[in-house]
Amino acid sequence: MNDIEIGKSFEFSNTFTNDDVFAFAEITKDDNPIHINDSYASNSIFGKRVVHGILVISMFSKIFGTIYPGNGGIYLSQTAKFLMPVFINEEILAKVTLRNFDYSKNRGTFITECFNSKGDLVLTGEAKILFPQQIKMK
Amino acid sequence: MNDIEIGKSFEFSNTFTNDDVFAFAEITKDDNPIHINDSYASNSIFGKRVVHGILVISMFSKIFGTIYPGNGGIYLSQTAKFLMPVFINEEILAKVTLRNFDYSKNRGTFITECFNSKGDLVLTGEAKILFPQQIKMK
Repeated sequence: MNDIEIGKSFEFSNTFTNDDVFAFAEITKDDNPIHINDSYASNSIFGKRVVHGILVISMFSKIFGTIYPGNGGIYLSQTAKFLMPVFINEEILAKVTLRNFDYSKNRGTFITECFNSKGDLVLTGEAKILFPQQIKMK
Repeated sequence: MNDIEIGKSFEFSNTFTNDDVFAFAEITKDDNPIHINDSYASNSIFGKRVVHGILVISMFSKIFGTIYPGNGGIYLSQTAKFLMPVFINEEILAKVTLRNFDYSKNRGTFITECFNSKGDLVLTGEAKILFPQQIKMK
């Protein structure tokens, strides 16, 4: 279990593969051709298939649920602006930064960002997490 | 292709199965035990395993990308407040309602909501979509 330190960041990198995108399309029934159809996507504004934006957001859930604050936290909210497309097999870095913490409510607010391998900010937003009871104050 | 009509809603129902949750945990590496470990979840505040919140949000992406406005739209942003847990094998209704449309920017703002089979609002938020060029004005 981690301490609470305003300004501290936690990161996770992931590369969504072709199989990941097809599996996600099957689970969610989101078979928009921009994600799964090469010829459609090649004629689109993006020029090739893109990863579902929601799949990119999932990287924050991974961090909050398994890294910090970790098991026992409760996801209260998430916002996301999709700034740039994320392509298949592109390594993405997700970064969450604790912006403030409400001790009376045991809630943390995080800035949530994703960057591609060129360092471009592809997604930005904010999340609120109800922290597990065991978190120690610093 | 659909017309633009403020206040009009579009819906999609889905039931996330145990297989869906495990597949999503594998794709995203979000293996928080609240989603995949029965004994852990039975001792949690929820009493049993819950579906990843991000997987529930995906229902809006399905609607926007394949139902309305459909192929060619671009997801600009999504916000979500997680109000209640969604359990495995629970039928969820996602509903998006066009709240306003900016003709100069060709952008629609939607209220986005999910309800469980009891009619409880489990998730609420807002999305902005850049509409496909072909959308006709009403």
